[in-house]
Parts: sequence; structure tokens; C-alpha cells
Amino acid sequence: MSRTLIELLGDELPAEALVTDPDVTASYAHDMASFCDAGTPAVVVLPRTVEQVQHVMRTATALRVPVVPQGARTGLSGGANATDGCVVLSLVKMDRILEINPVDRIAVVEPGVINATLSRAVNEKGLYYPPDPSSWEMCTIGGNIGTASGGLCCVKYGVTAEYVLGLDVVLADGRLLSTGRRTAKGVAGYDLTRLFVGSEGSLGVVVRATLALKPQPPQQLVLAAEFASAAAACDAVCKIMEGGHVPSLLELMDRTTVKAVNDMAHMGLPETTEALLLAAFDTPDPAQDLAAVGALCEAAGATQVVPAEDAAESELLLQARRLSLTALEAVKGTTMIDDVCVPRSRLGELLEGVERIADKYALTIGVCAHAGDGNTHPTVCFDAQDADEGRRARESFDEIMALGLELGGTITGEHGVGVLKKEWLARELGPVGVDVQRAVKATFDPLGLLNPGKLF
Amino acid sequence: MSRTLIELLGDELPAEALVTDPDVTASYAHDMASFCDAGTPAVVVLPRTVEQVQHVMRTATALRVPVVPQGARTGLSGGANATDGCVVLSLVKMDRILEINPVDRIAVVEPGVINATLSRAVNEKGLYYPPDPSSWEMCTIGGNIGTASGGLCCVKYGVTAEYVLGLDVVLADGRLLSTGRRTAKGVAGYDLTRLFVGSEGSLGVVVRATLALKPQPPQQLVLAAEFASAAAACDAVCKIMEGGHVPSLLELMDRTTVKAVNDMAHMGLPETTEALLLAAFDTPDPAQDLAAVGALCEAAGATQVVPAEDAAESELLLQARRLSLTALEAVKGTTMIDDVCVPRSRLGELLEGVERIADKYALTIGVCAHAGDGNTHPTVCFDAQDADEGRRARESFDEIMALGLELGGTITGEHGVGVLKKEWLARELGPVGVDVQRAVKATFDPLGLLNPGKLF
Ligand SMILES: Cc1cc2nc3c(=O)[nH]c(=O)nc-3n(C[C@H](O)[C@H](O)[C@H](O)COP(=O)(O)OP(=O)(O)OC[C@H]3O[C@@H](n4cnc5c(N)ncnc54)[C@H](O)[C@@H]3O)c2cc1C
Ligand SMILES: Cc1cc2nc3c(=O)[nH]c(=O)nc-3n(C[C@H](O)[C@H](O)[C@H](O)COP(=O)(O)OP(=O)(O)OC[C@H]3O[C@@H](n4cnc5c(N)ncnc54)[C@H](O)[C@@H]3O)c2cc1C
Repeated sequence: MSRTLIELLGDELPAEALVTDPDVTASYAHDMASFCDAGTPAVVVLPRTVEQVQHVMRTATALRVPVVPQGARTGLSGGANATDGCVVLSLVKMDRILEINPVDRIAVVEPGVINATLSRAVNEKGLYYPPDPSSWEMCTIGGNIGTASGGLCCVKYGVTAEYVLGLDVVLADGRLLSTGRRTAKGVAGYDLTRLFVGSEGSLGVVVRATLALKPQPPQQLVLAAEFASAAAACDAVCKIMEGGHVPSLLELMDRTTVKAVNDMAHMGLPETTEALLLAAFDTPDPAQDLAAVGALCEAAGATQVVPAEDAAESELLLQARRLSLTALEAVKGTTMIDDVCVPRSRLGELLEGVERIADKYALTIGVCAHAGDGNTHPTVCFDAQDADEGRRARESFDEIMALGLELGGTITGEHGVGVLKKEWLARELGPVGVDVQRAVKATFDPLGLLNPGKLF
Repeated sequence: MSRTLIELLGDELPAEALVTDPDVTASYAHDMASFCDAGTPAVVVLPRTVEQVQHVMRTATALRVPVVPQGARTGLSGGANATDGCVVLSLVKMDRILEINPVDRIAVVEPGVINATLSRAVNEKGLYYPPDPSSWEMCTIGGNIGTASGGLCCVKYGVTAEYVLGLDVVLADGRLLSTGRRTAKGVAGYDLTRLFVGSEGSLGVVVRATLALKPQPPQQLVLAAEFASAAAACDAVCKIMEGGHVPSLLELMDRTTVKAVNDMAHMGLPETTEALLLAAFDTPDPAQDLAAVGALCEAAGATQVVPAEDAAESELLLQARRLSLTALEAVKGTTMIDDVCVPRSRLGELLEGVERIADKYALTIGVCAHAGDGNTHPTVCFDAQDADEGRRARESFDEIMALGLELGGTITGEHGVGVLKKEWLARELGPVGVDVQRAVKATFDPLGLLNPGKLF
């Protein structure tokens, strides 16, 4: 009689690394996205070594069992959702920081390290790991790499992709591939590192990463500007960027978002305003830069420009922005969080369109945005018990993506495709794009075992 | 009777786009690398449109004829060298700048645009396209993308790869693929853009590129520091980077290089010094940053620290650095230019090793380096007529790469693999790496028609 999946896994994994209790495995079934199908895993594996991951992949390949790599499951596209009978491969126990090197400005980490843990550890050495998704206290570096995560600092510092120098990846068949380098530069062969970044667990399992660090910049100082319309705020964004400024943060919260954050956290943000723009600089003289940007905001019609007094006040404003998605969820119980990114010159048109769509479907859609990057999160707030509202939520969500594409944008700036946006990925890529992407997938995973049903 | 390659190409290409005169085609046979095999092209095609490039690739696929994409042939690895009977596909006539957008901070260009032409055009709009290979007055953006070129500014601004947002690529079978985006961020599907960057014409033909721009920084100010040993200069580099400084340039020229540049251009650089370090800042107050860095140089044992008086003097020092490779070529008529990049903490060991290797083989090896990135160009100067010296040159060249790998580095920081470093690529990647890279090649180019014999 042939041995079972669990038995075979157990050959090289200790008992505590294998979870089969259905009550427990069920809790690993999905990430934080609404409206995404999730199946029932056969087993959750929590490896601690590269060899154990290789054993999982070899076993899965031998038995043709699908494997779903997982970090902290804070994803917002269903990218980490289980499929029926799959092995959930959770990397959270591989959470060691292996090296921090201030001369080479690199860190070497396992995938389960929490973003905030790494950030603090490098700070202690005067270094800075920029990528800062708002979920940074929960999400893992492996998940950040899986989704090519962004955050608040991207407008100046770029996204996760820019900070991954090299990877160790366990391939579908269990082989271990090293990509990239420890050096600042390198062009030896194809850039497979970047191919894995943002591949949502569908090409291989990241088991180690070499990350680039920056020197820690001066403490940033934040300014809040109030606008009587989203259009005016977007105009300010364009003026700021056209003016050659390099803010370390340029974020937007619309009235709905501001109110939601106030309701949740009693922040005392100005609720009479239609759009709140947050700008920050971490330059040697941030007050001077903020003054220039404040003037541009006023020229664009800001009704109020309030620079933060100090670091504590700045941090409070960032806290408010980081709470946005969570606060919007509290509005009606459920949200569908969009992630459309447009050229920043089209940001105003996108926000105007979102308002129109909200009216059309009689829905509350709050918008927070990494405005400097044109990356918006129109967030549909609805009551999941109300079937009709749910249907309208879904339709408005789709209509926003269509608008984003029309404006020369992308359906996802940072949250990924997962199961949520599969049809939309095909629309964005077009037939040749889809063909080529599928061919790449087949090259790395000919049996289709790695995170099946995601992306395509 | 079946129609010939030239006849079929002529179906959709005007006569002036097809060069068959063997005297002329011979001049397209190779790039600027020494010791690299080059074959005799059957024809050189100079298309002006995307459709013409598609026609070339369809014809080549139909007839199973290899195609070698070419820019300005300033490459230093034989990456653009012809193979016997191939179509040389020169993109130099597709040289239009299609768009420069200061709000979105992007440029859209055809591949044949000269790097310096683009740089000047964006400067006029207050923008900055950082990648600046020393060949910038000659080389094309297509070639820069093909090799993922670096330059002097990389230590602060990164390499070409960091500035390519999206590409239009004609695939081996003639299909047109669009990758990436016009937006600042985007994670829709696999990052094929980066896969093409640095792929040395072996995966597809770049026919259009969307490039990210930065606001133009303040004029940089340069400092020159003299050291009594390469080791001391490398120590200074480590201290500067560990100290959290962000120079816009951090370059090294050894005594041989300094002398070669003086001999060629009468620059009056200090020849008594063993290593000259150039550091620059383009910050709001560069003099202050240079003072701090100058102090670190002195702490590391600099014998002289001379800040440039003004922009003109700064530019002169950069000119000297940019001339290095050309000047070294004049020393004995021929050079083999290496491109080893190591973690900057190992830079001193690499330079020490190069000296040892030069002694062992009784050769002149000048070193110039993008020191801040650990990217060195040990340049073997020799007389090509002297067979024994040629053999020693080749051996020393290889020994330097072996040392680079030993120190945790890469065989190529920016010049690429081409035909020059094929065996070394395999050594760097290891068997799994080579397998996967070959599989990727086969996915994009199953018939092996695109730039065959390069990389692998
Ligand atoms: C309140 C909140 C705020 C957020 N803010 C932001 C934000 O500002 N910016 C942003 O970009 N995102 C944001 N997110 C989304 C989410 O946090 C990020 O996508 C994050 O990177 C996911 O990390 P994770 O560890 O939770 O990964 P998971 O959700 O577990 O997985 C994400 C993807 O990566 C894959 N994966 C995970 N680990 C590995 C591995 N080791 N190898 C291969 N594949 C792997 C998974 O298969 C999945 O496809 C937010 C989410 C929440 C809930
Ligand atoms: C004096 C001198 C100094 C140099 N300094 C530097 C330096 O500082 N940094 C640096 O990185 N390099 C440097 N180089 C090397 C060289 O200039 C760069 O590699 C440059 O990017 C090559 O551009 P090119 O247009 O000449 O391309 P080519 O040499 O013609 O081609 C380079 C590669 O790109 C491919 N290619 C070209 N166009 C396309 C296209 N449209 N689509 C697909 N593939 C294409 C070719 O097949 C080839 O593999 C220097 C060279 C010289 C001679």
C-alpha cells in the first residue's frame, strides 16, 4: 500500500512541523482579502530549514500535490489562499536575521522575518530598510517579496523589488536555486531575482534573501494640507512632482477615510475637508522643503497647510494614514480594497471617476492613496449580508480597474493579482503577454503545483 | 526555387535598410572587446519601425537564420558580435525620443537613442536620466538595456535596470510583447521587463522603452584624495560607506591608470600616488559633505585631499576618470578589460590580489573602479603581437575572475557576459542556475536564433 502524503512528509519533518488538526489548518486557509475562494488544506507544514522545504517540494512533486507558500497571510488578493487538498507551506518559523553588514549595506534574512523586526534591527546599526507596507508589524519579508510590496516610503525609496539583491529559492521539484548576488551591482545572466519578486509563490519558494539597505535618513517631518476637492489635491501632487521635489512620503486620504480613521482612533483629523494630503521630507532641512511644498499646495488651492511641529506629531499623522484600510473596514463590516495605479498626471481623473462610480452604485468608496506614485486604494465599504450591496460592490470594484487601465494605469500597484484579479490580469497583459507569462510559469513549474489558480 | 533571405527581407524593408556590401557589413562584425570571436554577417538590417523589426524576426524564424541585435557596438564582452551568416539587426536608426513627461517623470524612447542625447534632452526639462556609462556619447539606450549598463553615478543612483519601467519587445517569432508600465509602481504579473534588461539581445529585440527619470540634482562637487596604497584607498571607501554617506560618485584610479590618462590627455593628475580616489556629492551643501568625506580619507591615510574649486574643475576630474579605459588601451596597444564586482568590504583584497597576479604574470594591469560599488575594471595591457604576452594576459584575466568569485563577487558588474565570459558565467551560476537560465532562454527563443553563442 502506498504511503500517504503526511507519512512521506514526516520522513524528514519533525511532528511539530506538521499540522493536520482541521480546526487549526482551517485558520491557514486564507489571507485578508474579501471575496476570494479558499479551499481546505490537507496539511500545514512549518519548516525551519531549507532542507525541510526541499523535502516538502520533492514530496509534493512525487505525489502531484499542490503547495501554497505562505507568510503572515496579510495579503489583500487571496494570493496565499489554500486550495483543496494542498500543502500549506508556511515560512513563518524560518525567521532568523542571518547577517547585517553596514559596510556592504546588506542584510541576509530568512523569509519569515517580520518586516518591522528587520526594520528595527537595521535601524540599530544606523541602517534603513525602506519598504514599509502599512501591515509592517505583521507581514513577512517572504510575503513582501512574493507580492513586491510597497508602502509609504516608495515615492522616494521604491518598492521591495528595488531592495532584493539575491535569493535562495526552492524550485517546484525541490532543487535549490541561488539567484543574484551580495554585491551592489551584477549582470551575470538573466535577472531571475526580479522574476521571483512579485511572483506570488507561483515560481518557487523563497528560503533566503539578500537585501540592500540604505543609511538611515534624518527623521522625516510631515505636513498636512487640506483641500476642498480631490482634484485640487491631485493638482498639488502634480505640481510638487513637476517642481522637482523629492518627498519621502506623499499620501492622500479622502473625506470618507479621514472620518473612518477618526471614528476608529479618535485622531482629531479635519473632517470638513474633502482631501487630506500628507507630505514629508527626510532631507537635512525638512522644514525648508515643507515650506516650498506648502506653498505649492496653497497655489493648488489648499484651504489649510499645517506642518507638524515635531517628530511625534509627524508620527501621529503617519499612524492615521497607516490605519486607513483597517478603519475603512469598520465602516460597514466588509471592504473590497482596490489597488489601481495610474500615471500621477492622471490621478485627478481617477479620483473623479471613483466618485462617479460610487454615486452610480450608491456605495461608500473611501480612497486612500500613495498619491505621489499614483497608487490608489479605492476601498468599497459594504455589508456582506446584503446580497445586492455585495453585487454592487463587486461591480464597482471592477469598474474602477477598467478606469485605471483606460487611464494608462495598472490593476495592481502593490497588492498583487492573487485570485482576486485574475481576469483583470489577462485584460492588462493582452494575449501575447498572457502567453509569455504562462510559458514562464510552465518553465519553472511544469506540473502546475506551486500556488495553482493564482495569477492566471 | 525558394527565395533568398535578402529577397524575403526586401519584401517589407526599403533598399537603404538592407546592407549587403561585404566591406560594409564587415564593419558591423564586432563590438569593442578584444579576444572575442566574430563571424561574417549575411546582411545588416537597419530598420526604422517596429513592423520592420517584426518582419525581420518572422523572416529569420521562417528561414532559421540567427539574428544579432546591435546598438552602437561599444560593448566590452563581444555581446554584439556577429555569427557567420547571421542577420545583424542594428537598431541605431530607430533613434527618436517619443516623449518626455516631467509630471510622470518618464521618457519614452526608441532603442537607438544615444545615451548622451537623451541625457541632454531631459536636462533641458529639469530632469535627469542617471545611467551614465563612460561611453555615453556613443552608446545607445538599447545597448544600455541589453547590458544593464552602469556608470559613474551608480553608487547613488543605481544602474540602467532601475530606470526601465516598461518595454516593447519583438520576440524571436516576430510577436510584439509589451511589458511593464508607465506608472511609478506596478505588480501585474511576472516582471518580464527586468528579465529583458541585461539579457544581451538573447531573449528579444527591444524596440521601445519607457524610462524613469529623476529631478535634476544640484551640480556635483568632486574631491580627489591621494593614497600611498590601494589598500588605504579601499579602507577609505569602506569608512565612507559605513559612515552613512551617500556620494554621487566614488571612483578609484590606480597609479597605472593615472599615468595612462596623463600620457593621453595631459591632465596633470598626481603620478606619485598609488591610488587616486574621487568622491562627489550632489547634495544641497556638497562642500560640507566633501569635508566629512575628506576627513575620513585622511583617517584612512590619504596623503593629500584636494576638493575641486568649482564645477569646471569637478568636470575635469570626471573627464579623467571617463578616459581611463581608452587611455589604458594606448599603453601597449591592446587591453582585456575585466569587470569584477565584489562586496565593497572585500575591495582591498581584490586589488591586492590583482597586484599579485600582475606580478606573477609580469604584466601591466591598470585598475580603475566604481569603488563605491565594489565594481573594478582590472585592465590587462599587452601587446597583441606578442603571443606569449597574449596568453599570459588571458590567464591573468581569468585568474582575476576566479579571485572575484572567491571573494563573494561576480564576474561582471556591468559589461555583461557576451562571448568573453561564457565559461565563467557557468562557474558563477552553478549547475542549477545554468539549467534554469537555459530553460528561460528556450522559453523565449526555442529555435535558438537570437544572438546565439552568447551567455551560454
Ligand atoms: C492593514 C493592511 C495594510 C496593508 N498595507 C499594505 C501596503 O501599504 N503596501 C502593500 O504593498 N501591501 C499592503 N498590505 C498587503 C500585505 O500586507 C502585503 O502584500 C504583504 O507583503 C504580505 O505579506 P505576508 O507575509 O502577509 O504574505 P502572505 O499574504 O502570506 O503571502 C503573500 C504572497 O506571497 C507568497 N509568499 C509568501 N511567502 C513566500 C515565500 N517565502 N516564498 C514564495 N512566496 C511566498 C504567497 O504565496 C502569496 O502569494 C496590507 C495589508 C493589510 C492587512
Ligand atoms: C570607452 C568605453 C567606456 C565604457 N564605459 C562603460 C561604463 O562605464 N559602464 C558600462 O556599463 N559599460 C561601459 N562600456 C561598455 C558599453 O559602452 C556598454 O555596454 C553599452 O551599454 C553598450 O551599448 P551599445 O549601444 O554600444 O550596445 P552594443 O555593444 O551594440 O550591444 C550591447 C548588447 O546589447 C544588445 N542589444 C543592443 N541593442 C539591443 C536592442 N535594441 N534589443 C535587444 N538587445 C540589444 C546586443 O545584442 C549586445 O548583447 C564602455 C565601453 C567603452 C568602449
